[in-house]
Amino acid sequence: MITTDICIIGAGPVGLFAVFEAGLLKMRCHLIDALPQVGGQLSEIYPQKPIYDIPGYPAINAQTLVDNLMDQIAPFHPTFTLGERVETLEKQDDGSYVITTSDGTAVRCQVVVIAGGLGCFEPRKPDIVNLEQFEGRGVAYMVKNPEQLRDRRVVLAGGGDSALDWTIFLADIAREVTLVHRSDTFRGAPDSAEKVFELAQEGRINLVLQSNITSISGNGHLNQVSITAKDKTVTSLPADNLIPLFGLTPKLGPIADWGLNIDKSAISVNTTDYATNVERVYAIGDINTYPGKLKLILCGFHEAALMCQSAFKYVYPSQKLSFKYTTVNGVPTF
Amino acid sequence: MITTDICIIGAGPVGLFAVFEAGLLKMRCHLIDALPQVGGQLSEIYPQKPIYDIPGYPAINAQTLVDNLMDQIAPFHPTFTLGERVETLEKQDDGSYVITTSDGTAVRCQVVVIAGGLGCFEPRKPDIVNLEQFEGRGVAYMVKNPEQLRDRRVVLAGGGDSALDWTIFLADIAREVTLVHRSDTFRGAPDSAEKVFELAQEGRINLVLQSNITSISGNGHLNQVSITAKDKTVTSLPADNLIPLFGLTPKLGPIADWGLNIDKSAISVNTTDYATNVERVYAIGDINTYPGKLKLILCGFHEAALMCQSAFKYVYPSQKLSFKYTTVNGVPTF
Repeated sequence: MITTDICIIGAGPVGLFAVFEAGLLKMRCHLIDALPQVGGQLSEIYPQKPIYDIPGYPAINAQTLVDNLMDQIAPFHPTFTLGERVETLEKQDDGSYVITTSDGTAVRCQVVVIAGGLGCFEPRKPDIVNLEQFEGRGVAYMVKNPEQLRDRRVVLAGGGDSALDWTIFLADIAREVTLVHRSDTFRGAPDSAEKVFELAQEGRINLVLQSNITSISGNGHLNQVSITAKDKTVTSLPADNLIPLFGLTPKLGPIADWGLNIDKSAISVNTTDYATNVERVYAIGDINTYPGKLKLILCGFHEAALMCQSAFKYVYPSQKLSFKYTTVNGVPTF
Repeated sequence: MITTDICIIGAGPVGLFAVFEAGLLKMRCHLIDALPQVGGQLSEIYPQKPIYDIPGYPAINAQTLVDNLMDQIAPFHPTFTLGERVETLEKQDDGSYVITTSDGTAVRCQVVVIAGGLGCFEPRKPDIVNLEQFEGRGVAYMVKNPEQLRDRRVVLAGGGDSALDWTIFLADIAREVTLVHRSDTFRGAPDSAEKVFELAQEGRINLVLQSNITSISGNGHLNQVSITAKDKTVTSLPADNLIPLFGLTPKLGPIADWGLNIDKSAISVNTTDYATNVERVYAIGDINTYPGKLKLILCGFHEAALMCQSAFKYVYPSQKLSFKYTTVNGVPTF
């Protein structure tokens, strides 16, 4: 069991900056993020794009902002659980919480701060009736360990970089690789698309264009995939694994079941301390909503600062908070 | 008459960043500041101090932050009136405002944004009953033009750098210089203090320690100052000029008479758009107050962003605001 003062859900820029504001008040933070790295959307979606509306930076590369924030919070030694999705929130008798992740990691904390951005990114799923029945039984939405696909008959679906890259990679590992794509052009990098066409010409992979996977079957485990072409012809082929790679879509996920007031997929908070309706649970950044809300990183920074002033009373119930300026006092470390 | 969309009172970091947020929405800004340069407290009080709580900067020199903000807003060509204090706010028939400064500069604008920090800096005054009666008639709180003191009998009061520096400087210009200080040690630079003690020993100035000026008199113009020592003895000496140099203290100034709701020297605003109780008048940064308020620069940045979304309707009454991200659209210029 990990023990901390504040458990921050989401390691995007706002979650990271919350560590700084908490640190000034001597509160320790543990961060959980479903993505395998810190930085949230900035690192996952547009790491090389310049951002122009961070105050004091006429322009800053998204990943550089994340790196700078990591430097800024380093004095406070935050700890991280990455690549795991939060699942449950359990109130303890003493008022504290235990949060559990998809992988069973448990974090005990006095205060919970949801800085989840647009939510956790969940895979987009194809429209196949019995798809979920085969999840974990041949159907998966990401390749965690390609060695598990060695010598298997693998069907991939999709037209973006993930589908192309994994097709190329698995051509050397799997017994048989089939890539199914609804169009005959790819959205992914032209280089990768060309490589995939070459592999198909060499007979090292099967490329099935202008087609969709329409049904799957198996006895306890996937063993057949049916593909429908635009001309309605249906082909079936044997398959051990189906990996639809249709991108990620943001979802609130299990947080939606925590009893929080939700307004149009965002968590309602007040503007005094960005507290939710659940005691000791705050929401900051793009995931919250209140009158006037703007989904700007700089707004999340402000919300983080006010939240920490309020969270202090739960972490240090017998101490009086005295507000100090870093310009006068510098940054304390611990 | 200067004409603009938004007149920003105060050219500190928050006032400057408001130009950026306004610019994204194609609103032009004119800034007025009582100080002779932009940057507010950062440039006036601690330009060389590092600030640690600007998100994305583990540390940044105060003046560098101001310089970066000036770069960030340059695409929007803000205009400035510096070294003048705002005096009056007059509502026009069409809903717009005309603001007039201490020097008679007039600015017509659709929206007024008060980003005045701690207020304008006014001189601290000694406790002398009829002091204000002699202001401009021998009593002044700063030396604007030392030549006006040539061959005059000047009494200075104070123990800081201003008092020491002007005593040394005026020793060569005035007919007679007297420095009165309540203590026998000085807060100012030791070098300067030493020089003052030397001048006193040489008989080139009068140094009156452990004493306060307790009364002044004159017939239309100052001509006598009475000094009371710690042992209660009172001495009078002839004087043409009295210059108390007791530092500056922030005051709301004439803004206090604009009909705004004031709560403990700060302007009450709501947190949806940081509007005051007076239509089209907003207050952002250290000068405002609301439940949860923190006097942090980063909070003022957030307030500036939300304020601009609301101000838009007064500048472009017939247009619908569409919110855009700089990461997607870049920064428009005009």
